[in-house]
Amino acid sequence: MTDQREKSIAILGGTGDQGLGLALRFTAAGTPVVIGSRKHERAMEAAENVRKQVAGASVDGFVNAEACQKAEIVILSVPFENTASTLKGIREHLQPGQILVSMGVPLATSVGDTATRMLGIWQGSCAELVAGLAPRGVEVVSAFQNVSAHRLQHLPDVVECDVVVSGAKEPRRRVMALCGLVPGLRAVDGGPLANARIVEAITALLIGMNVRYRVPEGIGIRFTGVPSGSD
Amino acid sequence: MTDQREKSIAILGGTGDQGLGLALRFTAAGTPVVIGSRKHERAMEAAENVRKQVAGASVDGFVNAEACQKAEIVILSVPFENTASTLKGIREHLQPGQILVSMGVPLATSVGDTATRMLGIWQGSCAELVAGLAPRGVEVVSAFQNVSAHRLQHLPDVVECDVVVSGAKEPRRRVMALCGLVPGLRAVDGGPLANARIVEAITALLIGMNVRYRVPEGIGIRFTGVPSGSD
Repeated sequence: MTDQREKSIAILGGTGDQGLGLALRFTAAGTPVVIGSRKHERAMEAAENVRKQVAGASVDGFVNAEACQKAEIVILSVPFENTASTLKGIREHLQPGQILVSMGVPLATSVGDTATRMLGIWQGSCAELVAGLAPRGVEVVSAFQNVSAHRLQHLPDVVECDVVVSGAKEPRRRVMALCGLVPGLRAVDGGPLANARIVEAITALLIGMNVRYRVPEGIGIRFTGVPSGSD
Repeated sequence: MTDQREKSIAILGGTGDQGLGLALRFTAAGTPVVIGSRKHERAMEAAENVRKQVAGASVDGFVNAEACQKAEIVILSVPFENTASTLKGIREHLQPGQILVSMGVPLATSVGDTATRMLGIWQGSCAELVAGLAPRGVEVVSAFQNVSAHRLQHLPDVVECDVVVSGAKEPRRRVMALCGLVPGLRAVDGGPLANARIVEAITALLIGMNVRYRVPEGIGIRFTGVPSGSD
């Protein structure tokens, strides 16, 4: 395991709004990012886009299967309906000890209904679906679902949002530490992975609020009364 | 309809922690409260308890069926497992135009499991179950699920929590206005009643956080980026 691999974060679906937003923020914090996409060309374009916005960004683009071998933490940032197929395409390239971050939300848009509604997922949540498909020894952690892609992408903004991180204790702690890279984000301990059922659904609630309050930049969430310095 | 009835709020299950907390806060704001319970005696005891803590409180205790006739807004604050039976006992005493507020949460404690997990409710949520049992013309609104009973009951505290209010537009607005009676509470427009599915589940998430962060007083929730003065 190289030092570079240890420090890097891979973002599969890093060409999409939310993935690109995280890539911008992580590179801006000096963290090397590997962008994955189904097509190498699109991944390279996204990397070029990041380099244009973040001076000195360490970022490169690869096809998903290759990208996921280049980092210890792999963030799955594909539309929910592509989650299972993406995972089946990369699972043989993942290795025990890697952390796979699920940020997908089973919005009803996946079946042509509206983004303010959720699909019922047999496993309970996108994160648990991912956990069911991940190879043994790869830890799945749920995070980042409630963070506005718009605000992530607008680099001058402080992103006023808590990130509820769920999963097994040790990998959860490691993903919680990532939140500190983005100004305004705060990690909150979300306990076991099954709590992703609730966290994912909050996204649908926020999307409805964005419409009702006309806040296209995205409403966020904060938890009050959380002791400071407790993460 | 008397003027007193128009101004009053009835709280069924007002002898429980959360109902009592609301009774204390509403009376402290000068709003007359009617406490309902299955037993008249217990309702009167709770009313006496409120009077002891809030000087000049306008509060009285009745059996549920009687209490719900004495206010236009009736808050259902009974344990989830008693929701249907309580409603069946009062439905013939409710009248069109009244607003019934569902604050119940289908925690798995109802079936002996833990309070950090939810039951699946056929109708989708406690609020929708209530809506299915309410007489025609009675509007059901979902609110107050995420507010800590502990903090409500501790009158010197400002309750740092947003209240997501869901239901039809007009009754929703009226329930949102109630939040202004409690220092710190802010109403957020939660859209259609079905969103109670998400809001109720947030309670289970908060209960888990209270344990992990050791905050028995209760962690709350705030939404960021909501335009001020928009409710």
